[in-house]
Amino acid sequence: MLLYYLDLAGVAVFAASGVLAARDRDLDLLGVLMVATLTAIGGGTLRDLLLDRHPIFWIVDTWYLIVIIAATLATILYLRLRPPPGKIFLIADALGLALFAMLGAKLTLAAGHAPLIVVLMGTMTGVTGGVLRDVVTARIPLIMQKEIYATAAIAGIVAYLALQSLGVASSMAFSTGIVVVVLLRVLAIRWGLNLPVCRKR
Amino acid sequence: MLLYYLDLAGVAVFAASGVLAARDRDLDLLGVLMVATLTAIGGGTLRDLLLDRHPIFWIVDTWYLIVIIAATLATILYLRLRPPPGKIFLIADALGLALFAMLGAKLTLAAGHAPLIVVLMGTMTGVTGGVLRDVVTARIPLIMQKEIYATAAIAGIVAYLALQSLGVASSMAFSTGIVVVVLLRVLAIRWGLNLPVCRKR
Amino acid sequence: MLLYYLDLAGVAVFAASGVLAARDRDLDLLGVLMVATLTAIGGGTLRDLLLDRHPIFWIVDTWYLIVIIAATLATILYLRLRPPPGKIFLIADALGLALFAMLGAKLTLAAGHAPLIVVLMGTMTGVTGGVLRDVVTARIPLIMQKEIYATAAIAGIVAYLALQSLGVASSMAFSTGIVVVVLLRVLAIRWGLNLPVCRKR
Repeated sequence: MLLYYLDLAGVAVFAASGVLAARDRDLDLLGVLMVATLTAIGGGTLRDLLLDRHPIFWIVDTWYLIVIIAATLATILYLRLRPPPGKIFLIADALGLALFAMLGAKLTLAAGHAPLIVVLMGTMTGVTGGVLRDVVTARIPLIMQKEIYATAAIAGIVAYLALQSLGVASSMAFSTGIVVVVLLRVLAIRWGLNLPVCRKR
Repeated sequence: MLLYYLDLAGVAVFAASGVLAARDRDLDLLGVLMVATLTAIGGGTLRDLLLDRHPIFWIVDTWYLIVIIAATLATILYLRLRPPPGKIFLIADALGLALFAMLGAKLTLAAGHAPLIVVLMGTMTGVTGGVLRDVVTARIPLIMQKEIYATAAIAGIVAYLALQSLGVASSMAFSTGIVVVVLLRVLAIRWGLNLPVCRKR
Repeated sequence: MLLYYLDLAGVAVFAASGVLAARDRDLDLLGVLMVATLTAIGGGTLRDLLLDRHPIFWIVDTWYLIVIIAATLATILYLRLRPPPGKIFLIADALGLALFAMLGAKLTLAAGHAPLIVVLMGTMTGVTGGVLRDVVTARIPLIMQKEIYATAAIAGIVAYLALQSLGVASSMAFSTGIVVVVLLRVLAIRWGLNLPVCRKR
């Protein structure tokens, strides 16, 4: 049940990040809503398709779309009332990344797959929505930029798997994973953290 | 049965729009055919994957590919014989959008899903082929431009659902939906119609 | 069994081509690994989704990811030790294209589909990984360039189908198909071979 609310929360923050990415692209209201929806359901849809979980999460449960519409309208309204804090787009994206990466990992683990597969599926679930958002709004995808991004998702999932295998309660390990992803992203943004880069000789 | 022919018609006009989009991109014949095929089957394939309808429509029924090949050759031939009317690309796209959006909506409704889901699935089915076409031919996707686009699909589907819930015969409501989408797109193109845009403050 | 090793070989060479495409993009180690993975599993994942083959190949068998990681590290190491031969990226891509196109064709044929569908599914399986690689590393997709590309895959699959229908042993026809794809691509690259282009009048 808590997982369901976390899933809805992930959908909401990713929808908000979609609105923030779309707002200087001259889209009409429904265009903005389409970008928000694509961002919000992209990762989970890929996860459900790859794991053959049918029906897809948002197709059976109308609440997901209602939350997306509400989050989109709330974000648009908020943007009209006050200038947004500078890094709000990156924060919304970091929360969405963390929630979806960890939920994707948890579902893959529950389906009985190997740790390496759990890490990959979780990472793909976390990053896909943001990549789609950046592509349709013609931005350089966050995942392609220097600051650690996919790495944050991987680190959070590895922390979750490691803690659980050490006997830590699942919910505790899961929350720690989320905190690790968000923290790494926030630190990466603030201090421009990045791993050593593979350069051409 | 009529739906089957409408589906084939949608495939044909989207294939033609793919050829028109590809013709100044220096592709060879098979390259143009690939773009036409991607445009023609993109939306329906996403629809079938998301609704878990297997086998995918074009995999079991070779007629779809035959129609795509025929439409591609006919369009290429036509382009050699006479200069195309100015807006022919946009007209072919509008017809494909209308047919696929309405067929996607009808199938989602038949699968028993909620109206909000029907609108989203129909819209995604309608716009996906054109987005793929525009991305692989390096154009600014029509869906990202100012004139109403996804909005036309949404309006047609809403009209279809509303008329049907008012007791209008399904085939009548369906045809009306198609007319609404095409008309809105044609008017939008002719008069540059667009919804109020969400601007950055 | 041999097919399994060919599949692993396709994954390895496509992973290497992903590393080569990513190396001047300022990505960190995990970013490069993500590009390599996307390139290596993209085509096969689309194939399995479209043919409804679940679980997806790399989700049940950890060897695929292990091979991807090994091929990625080996390629990075190799690039540090010596300047790569000029065309190595194109060669790795040609091998991946050939292996995946033919494997996609063989699986579609085994599922009992028509020759036209076999050609399309095989071609899509072959080209998808490379298209994803080129899109995420912001290159002009090889498939959009002048030299024959999708055409090479189509020719190899047609050769395979034709030989088999003439009574040639399946493994012989299959190997011939692979040779045809690789040879056509190598010749196309060396001599700038291309089919007549469809130009705008």
